Amino acid sequence: MEEVFQNETIKQILAKYRRIWAIGHAQSVLGWDLEVNMPKEGILERSVAQGELSVLSHELLLHPEFVNLVEKAKGLENLNEYERGIVRVLDRSIRIARAFPPEFIREVSETTSLATKAWEEAKAKDDFSKFEPWLDKIISLAKRAAEYLGYEEEPYDALLDLYEEGLRTRDVEKMFEVLEKKLKPLLDKILEEGKVPREHPLEKEKYEREWMERVNLWILQKFGFPLGTRARLDVSAHPFTTEFGIRDVRITTRYEGYDFRRTILSTVHEFGHALYELQQDERFMFTPIAGGVSLGIHESQSRFWENIIGRSKEFVELIYPVLKENLPFMSNYTPEDVYLYFNIVRPDFIRTEADVVTYNFHILLRFKLERLMVSEEIKAKDLPEMWNDEMERLLGIRPRKYSEGILQDIHWAHGSIGYFPTYTIGTLLSAQLYYHIKKDIPDFEEKVAKAEFDPIKAWLREKIHRWGSIYPPKELLKKAIGEDMDAEYFVRWVKEKYL
Amino acid sequence: MEEVFQNETIKQILAKYRRIWAIGHAQSVLGWDLEVNMPKEGILERSVAQGELSVLSHELLLHPEFVNLVEKAKGLENLNEYERGIVRVLDRSIRIARAFPPEFIREVSETTSLATKAWEEAKAKDDFSKFEPWLDKIISLAKRAAEYLGYEEEPYDALLDLYEEGLRTRDVEKMFEVLEKKLKPLLDKILEEGKVPREHPLEKEKYEREWMERVNLWILQKFGFPLGTRARLDVSAHPFTTEFGIRDVRITTRYEGYDFRRTILSTVHEFGHALYELQQDERFMFTPIAGGVSLGIHESQSRFWENIIGRSKEFVELIYPVLKENLPFMSNYTPEDVYLYFNIVRPDFIRTEADVVTYNFHILLRFKLERLMVSEEIKAKDLPEMWNDEMERLLGIRPRKYSEGILQDIHWAHGSIGYFPTYTIGTLLSAQLYYHIKKDIPDFEEKVAKAEFDPIKAWLREKIHRWGSIYPPKELLKKAIGEDMDAEYFVRWVKEKYL
Repeated sequence: MEEVFQNETIKQILAKYRRIWAIGHAQSVLGWDLEVNMPKEGILERSVAQGELSVLSHELLLHPEFVNLVEKAKGLENLNEYERGIVRVLDRSIRIARAFPPEFIREVSETTSLATKAWEEAKAKDDFSKFEPWLDKIISLAKRAAEYLGYEEEPYDALLDLYEEGLRTRDVEKMFEVLEKKLKPLLDKILEEGKVPREHPLEKEKYEREWMERVNLWILQKFGFPLGTRARLDVSAHPFTTEFGIRDVRITTRYEGYDFRRTILSTVHEFGHALYELQQDERFMFTPIAGGVSLGIHESQSRFWENIIGRSKEFVELIYPVLKENLPFMSNYTPEDVYLYFNIVRPDFIRTEADVVTYNFHILLRFKLERLMVSEEIKAKDLPEMWNDEMERLLGIRPRKYSEGILQDIHWAHGSIGYFPTYTIGTLLSAQLYYHIKKDIPDFEEKVAKAEFDPIKAWLREKIHRWGSIYPPKELLKKAIGEDMDAEYFVRWVKEKYL
Repeated sequence: MEEVFQNETIKQILAKYRRIWAIGHAQSVLGWDLEVNMPKEGILERSVAQGELSVLSHELLLHPEFVNLVEKAKGLENLNEYERGIVRVLDRSIRIARAFPPEFIREVSETTSLATKAWEEAKAKDDFSKFEPWLDKIISLAKRAAEYLGYEEEPYDALLDLYEEGLRTRDVEKMFEVLEKKLKPLLDKILEEGKVPREHPLEKEKYEREWMERVNLWILQKFGFPLGTRARLDVSAHPFTTEFGIRDVRITTRYEGYDFRRTILSTVHEFGHALYELQQDERFMFTPIAGGVSLGIHESQSRFWENIIGRSKEFVELIYPVLKENLPFMSNYTPEDVYLYFNIVRPDFIRTEADVVTYNFHILLRFKLERLMVSEEIKAKDLPEMWNDEMERLLGIRPRKYSEGILQDIHWAHGSIGYFPTYTIGTLLSAQLYYHIKKDIPDFEEKVAKAEFDPIKAWLREKIHRWGSIYPPKELLKKAIGEDMDAEYFVRWVKEKYL
């Protein structure tokens, strides 16, 4: 393979960057170990180590020599697209790292750590007043963060960009307009028609962990997940994916002991994330352009495997024999039962329990409130009522408790404002990618039925994965499929699937 | 608890040291993960990360500001013993880190990495000639290392000190003189009398991994090992202990599927190492005096639990019911059988297979050769013959193959010359500690029989563990038991146990 980094300044940058990369690698291992293995009381020493390494990495990134090299590279005209990717990613990291004064970073860190504790208590006791003052503080920090970062149109843009490079409020607005106008009526129709179930007896069936471990391993093997050579599957409280590089990518799942589709679909979801990292161009190893470019694009990969493949008839039929072999209760159910069970649509209070269709309205609600928080004079005390009204308007149900309403998510307590929209971006893009992949692989469904995933993986590698972070998300998409994000595809997919 | 670090300069040193500590923490996690979890092909990225972090840590240690603070602290007169410990440990680390020029470090790293590959091939093919040129290179590097480090009496002292602070060649010589003079005749007598078996049918009995997992967990629980809160037990190719701090200490064991005492005794051995780290004074957290002071003292703790406790009649009787419950073949054997099986004495070619008595002669042999390598004009090609002659003289057996002779250990390929004697130091000290603990706990054996390990752990904590690395090994020993290392105790223990 040709050497992609030719320019001397870029080579100097990459030589210095290795150290930052190494700290990132270590941070990932520390984080993974914390979730998967760490004995409980190890937390104090682990947190201190993580904190020290963060500061160290921050200092290396902002070291004058390093910054000067990046500045110099920004002025170079003869860089190839790989090299320009390096410069863009580092320049962006430096800009963000420099945006916040150290006192502000400390304030955020202290506030969110206390707010998280307050949120836990508030949620447990269903008492919003315990979290309210913290939420006010977090709103004010978010506003300040937006000012530090700067924006062209409105403050919320600055926060969106943190999670999804180049994303603007108006992009999000546009996508939710389509969903409100076209998906909402579809949802109503689905619920009215009643062909798609609102609940299913399979939700209540209990399983032993080993049964589903075998099923998950079987599925991952069919997907060609390189367990033991370049990948692992472990167990953690909340499933996640982490990459220690291109050749060591780890996913986790969980086993609740009932409602077995959850462990399957979360394993399949994390596989989608992992595949994005595993299919990077190896020449990018140790550089800042190795790895998925943004949360939204990443989520499009996980949702593609979870929703488009994992909830398809063909996939259900593919795994049915293995389910039957491992789950004794399965003899009472047909593949059609499992398919319906995988595709329940039911308005629910809790986002993480939501189905593919209603999920997006949970995000729409959060987007509306976040935008108001950052751009208007809104107080935390007004939010629960707004939350409940919006929930009623969108899904026709009204939370009776804070814990099933505004207190359900940890994100705001963590100070993550502007993060939620990436979930819907992922969902929408997964459907958009599906209709494009169908153009190149018309027998997509037959391939899934026969567990021939290689052409699908190759398509994703060629169009998305191999480019790492070279291009910003919007540009990557344009290069991959020749168009911008378009919510209409998802609406079409829902219509074709559920009606 | 009183604050132990009062001095301002010391406080400044410790504030800066946190970062070095954090990198050390990360390095330990990376190393543990590599042995226990890492998918095979993750090795390239892992090695690069480890290399970068090593260099970074080295630079932080030798940063002029840090070195100046340590220099300044060396001149202070009003430091307490904890603070003096900090200065001694850091001054020593800085001295060692500065001793070698960067080109030399690179040469060692490249040579040992290639030598290790050559050794693997040589051992597999039983062809010494493949390793011989590398061993010559390593001998010459060891000589140069000794010159860089400096020494008062002979070059080998400089290498010994790397692994065991303050250890001199004459200390090692003295200890082996006692063993040659007194242990050798004992060994001959044991073998002649034949009351202690040379082999036992239990060596051949096969087990399922789950059986011994249950036994090991039962033992660790009796020992009070804080699994899940501050500790873990995992599986790796070569059992080891690693500490990520005082509150997260992890051991590994292995399950070969036969000869079950191996997995028990290696678990018990690693527990001894782990206990040393778990019983540190928590006020030392994040400082360079937290953690065992030297390899020899560390090995004294592991050997104490393995040999003194683990091979005792009382321990065997304690675990016999659990063995019987989990190992179906155990109904054919009595506790006396298990005791004999745990205490086989048999001259063997392979050090790692050796029993408690013959083990030390394996080390004696290596010590003799290493000393010659470093202090005399000796060539690698002469070593196999010398090895075999010495083996015959000491244990009465002569290797027929290089792989059961000079090619058996990886240590020299790794460039570790001066390391082996710490194994025997640990063995000798474990017996010495035993006779001292008996003075304070006369019913030691009854305590073991009743699984009352708390007083034993408390004694070890008070005398050894809680002091971390405050005192150099010799001083620690003097404070703990009022005397220097004395090989006579071990000879006495062997006599009392085996004759």
